[in-house]
Amino acid sequence: MSVVLPFNPIAEMAPEPSLEGIVTLVQADMGRVNALILSRTGSEVTMIPEVAQHLISSGGKRLRPMLTLATGALSGYEGDGTVKLAASVEFMHTATLLHDDVVDDSEMRRGKLAARMLWGNEASVLVGDFLLGQAFRMMIEVGNMRALDILSTAAVVIAEGEVAQLAAAKNIATDEEAYLAVIRGKTAELFAAACEVGPVLAGRSEAEQAACRAYGMNLGIAFQLVDDALDYGGSQADLGKNVGDDFREGKITLPIVLAVRRADEAERGFWRRCLEQSEIGEGDLERALALLTRHGAIGETVERARTYGAAAKKALDGFSAGPAKHALLDVVDFCISRVR
Amino acid sequence: MSVVLPFNPIAEMAPEPSLEGIVTLVQADMGRVNALILSRTGSEVTMIPEVAQHLISSGGKRLRPMLTLATGALSGYEGDGTVKLAASVEFMHTATLLHDDVVDDSEMRRGKLAARMLWGNEASVLVGDFLLGQAFRMMIEVGNMRALDILSTAAVVIAEGEVAQLAAAKNIATDEEAYLAVIRGKTAELFAAACEVGPVLAGRSEAEQAACRAYGMNLGIAFQLVDDALDYGGSQADLGKNVGDDFREGKITLPIVLAVRRADEAERGFWRRCLEQSEIGEGDLERALALLTRHGAIGETVERARTYGAAAKKALDGFSAGPAKHALLDVVDFCISRVR
Repeated sequence: MSVVLPFNPIAEMAPEPSLEGIVTLVQADMGRVNALILSRTGSEVTMIPEVAQHLISSGGKRLRPMLTLATGALSGYEGDGTVKLAASVEFMHTATLLHDDVVDDSEMRRGKLAARMLWGNEASVLVGDFLLGQAFRMMIEVGNMRALDILSTAAVVIAEGEVAQLAAAKNIATDEEAYLAVIRGKTAELFAAACEVGPVLAGRSEAEQAACRAYGMNLGIAFQLVDDALDYGGSQADLGKNVGDDFREGKITLPIVLAVRRADEAERGFWRRCLEQSEIGEGDLERALALLTRHGAIGETVERARTYGAAAKKALDGFSAGPAKHALLDVVDFCISRVR
Repeated sequence: MSVVLPFNPIAEMAPEPSLEGIVTLVQADMGRVNALILSRTGSEVTMIPEVAQHLISSGGKRLRPMLTLATGALSGYEGDGTVKLAASVEFMHTATLLHDDVVDDSEMRRGKLAARMLWGNEASVLVGDFLLGQAFRMMIEVGNMRALDILSTAAVVIAEGEVAQLAAAKNIATDEEAYLAVIRGKTAELFAAACEVGPVLAGRSEAEQAACRAYGMNLGIAFQLVDDALDYGGSQADLGKNVGDDFREGKITLPIVLAVRRADEAERGFWRRCLEQSEIGEGDLERALALLTRHGAIGETVERARTYGAAAKKALDGFSAGPAKHALLDVVDFCISRVR
């Protein structure tokens, strides 16, 4: 009996996108970043390393610090600074996650119980503050005023984005522009800052700094769009959190914006009841998924992500080919490939 | 009929301690600090200025920024830097208050509803993050690396103190040393940093920087000791919050540490039930107040505050007399006079 092997020409031609390129590129420095992260979560107040390391060791990809190291490599930087800034970026991100979980009443994070479920909201708020303070201390140690300005501005813009998201929540009149402003702030700004400080430390031209920033900004938007699509399409195991979390929290993400725009009166009433009045019953998530599918809202969200991903890649046009550029381009494909 | 006027020789000799000296000293610069505070709470996300200004305009004394300006004046500083650092210090303080209210489930703050009661815990957490970010941006604008180091370290130490307080809460075995470590972190560190950056910007000697820091640290400890005494002794109108808040939250402050140390078995059982098991019923606050009084715990707490106050004054011995030194000495008397 002959065995017919399945043949998939696309899979043959393009290997599964992965983070392998960037992981290999920054491996040595990431070891130092991880050691720094470990030492700077230390405190005589034992609850601090417990809470911080619960989240930090929970298997995040550490994409943002890798981006700082990789854009540093792309810019020919050879000093110690990007290691400290990469750890700062990861601390800023971790602080945001701890505070987000309190803001969103989340029970799960990266497939584990959220820190607030184990140590309480109080500890999540305060350990987040500790990590933010440590992030600033590390960046101050690097002593580059422009990098300090970029990262401290990012801290402000992230908080603004989060508050804007809060203000837009439970309001189905939120439009695409308002949604984009939220995700630029809450997600893309830190990607942008993480990528901009590499060429800044390397003393590259303003045009090159702006190019790396644009890469990070567009990548960050694409990343969040994919996340928002996954919230209605991924499986719990893939995502490390529950499908439909955004729906239950009344978060107005792009899939919702698009579906509401195309809704008839009955559908609009459904979205209003579920998202504005938070009256969600049996079968409502399924109905929401069916409506999102019928209006092509998930597919279109992914399509936008591809567009921003292409813009991220294009931003690096001016840099010459090499392992760093190759790795950064692969990151874009990987982020978008998380959703099918 | 002759009228006999009451005669109180002490009141005749020493006028009521007040903040008048420091208020007059820094008046012009505080106008600029207040304008800066107003402009840096601005955001297109309207919820941010709403929440921030609710708290900022609620009649705090702005003691910490006044200390930065006054120690700057004491050090002969004449530039713009202390104005920005003073605003940074007030933002750090305001961010802490917003986060504290969430951590403590407080309903009142400075005699008004806490921000979290009006806008929710979410907004309190995120606007606190915004203000902390803005604080860092302002200090970065000043561009003095040593001041940046002092203030960012303070942010870390404050968070550590708050977490330590959380870990010590509902544990009547907390001793005086542990209590002091908590208040050094959560309160005195910001006073110390606020006072240290003045001579730092003025380029004064390390000894003078250390002296101003010691002044602030001792003043901050005295300030918190008085606060903790007031929590069991002040009236609601005086304090802007409810009497017995600490008791209801199971916070272990010095009055409690001292009363527990002198408690018999029955009293220890009472403290355990109220503070560790949070089983507080009718009449329990009154019983707590009676026990604190019987063991002289409030009086002794105030006595410690006087000792730290004296140390604060002594720290300024090396500075020559003048309006700035006079004002700073008066601040100590004022802080202690809040409790009788």
